[in-house]
Amino acid sequence: MAYEFYYWPSIQGRGEFVRLALEEAGADYIDIARNSVDVGSGEEALMAFLERDDISHPPFAPPFLKDGNVLIGQTAAILLYLGDRHELAPRDEAKRLWVHQIQLTIADLVGEAHDTHHPLSGDLYYEDQKPEAQRRAKSFREERIPKFLGWLERILARNPEGAGQLVGSVLTYADLSLFQVVEGLVYAFPRRMRRTLREVPRLAALHQAIAQRPRIRAYLNSDRRIAFNEQGIFRHYPELDG
Amino acid sequence: MAYEFYYWPSIQGRGEFVRLALEEAGADYIDIARNSVDVGSGEEALMAFLERDDISHPPFAPPFLKDGNVLIGQTAAILLYLGDRHELAPRDEAKRLWVHQIQLTIADLVGEAHDTHHPLSGDLYYEDQKPEAQRRAKSFREERIPKFLGWLERILARNPEGAGQLVGSVLTYADLSLFQVVEGLVYAFPRRMRRTLREVPRLAALHQAIAQRPRIRAYLNSDRRIAFNEQGIFRHYPELDG
Repeated sequence: MAYEFYYWPSIQGRGEFVRLALEEAGADYIDIARNSVDVGSGEEALMAFLERDDISHPPFAPPFLKDGNVLIGQTAAILLYLGDRHELAPRDEAKRLWVHQIQLTIADLVGEAHDTHHPLSGDLYYEDQKPEAQRRAKSFREERIPKFLGWLERILARNPEGAGQLVGSVLTYADLSLFQVVEGLVYAFPRRMRRTLREVPRLAALHQAIAQRPRIRAYLNSDRRIAFNEQGIFRHYPELDG
Repeated sequence: MAYEFYYWPSIQGRGEFVRLALEEAGADYIDIARNSVDVGSGEEALMAFLERDDISHPPFAPPFLKDGNVLIGQTAAILLYLGDRHELAPRDEAKRLWVHQIQLTIADLVGEAHDTHHPLSGDLYYEDQKPEAQRRAKSFREERIPKFLGWLERILARNPEGAGQLVGSVLTYADLSLFQVVEGLVYAFPRRMRRTLREVPRLAALHQAIAQRPRIRAYLNSDRRIAFNEQGIFRHYPELDG
């Protein structure tokens, strides 16, 4: 039975980390809200699901994944589940948990990237918090991006099985998520990232290598891949770059 | 062999979610930075560990837990590990993942609570971002607290095995984390929470029940429990309450 995947139909957002894992796995899945006749009805389908009162494990927010009777929310929890089922995580317990730990740290980076354009509230428009966004983005660019990417570079350098992947000797969902977060940062902060990527050569190489994997390349070239835009988590506002 | 637990020695912070699980489990653990001769040397021990270059799984930040050769960072990942070892999570896979999903959502709430006093940057003092903090706190109080606590209340109401715990019929680490996040919110936003807790009776009852568990009560009354203060995640700034 195909997985049912639920996420906003017009942005990559957090859902993209799940989409990439499903695509790399070659899994059979239906992107529910994108399969509706238009974006509006896709969002309605999503909201209607969240408001059902007959679900014992209601997700707090999209993305969530339905696999038969199992319903899972929270990006990192979905990836933990998919990792086991599609050989996108090691079987060894300590390594499996290490992949998850890396994923959770990438999730923190994604949250901070979001808050650069919404430092005061997700309920206000960006236009209503621009000066604050500039201050937050400065700190993010100068302190946080180097700290997070430097940490990922260090992990690659220290992997006893080589810097071709974050953990062990084969691809994991954390590598796919590394690709996606770098894609997002390059989209949102192109000037800063051009300089930063020179400092983290292993990370830059892994980012490139993931883009060349056959299934990922096919996905990126398909119309299933939504383009980055200014409704998503990673937004290109030139005034926030530097 | 005792667990070695690493976290800032003078705040509850994210580490407290781990401390509560260790205490409820009756686990043998050493709170490394608190066992140093003074707070300053405890922090130094922590930083020195993070800067070691011989660790293949370096944590990004505290808290982290060392169990023999296994080193785990990220609060939710540590709890996933401890949950399995100390019967603080169900064995059934779907329920085990559901507990983890709840924990990750509580972690999001904790992150947002932190950002009420640091909306622009963790590198600036609160005093340098007070007007912004007031705007962010308003949105947090009025939109986010009710949304998160309402979701937890709904989970309790829908648990087929009763509202005495979030998942299944026995205590999990998610229940302990619910206790802690409510404690923190009551400390930081007492006026708001007095009103809000009336709207979520099951959650309020579970919060009370956890405080009465023998090991938790003993812990809360011990000097191992650090008092809330204005260096932690949950800070009481009256101007942010309302």
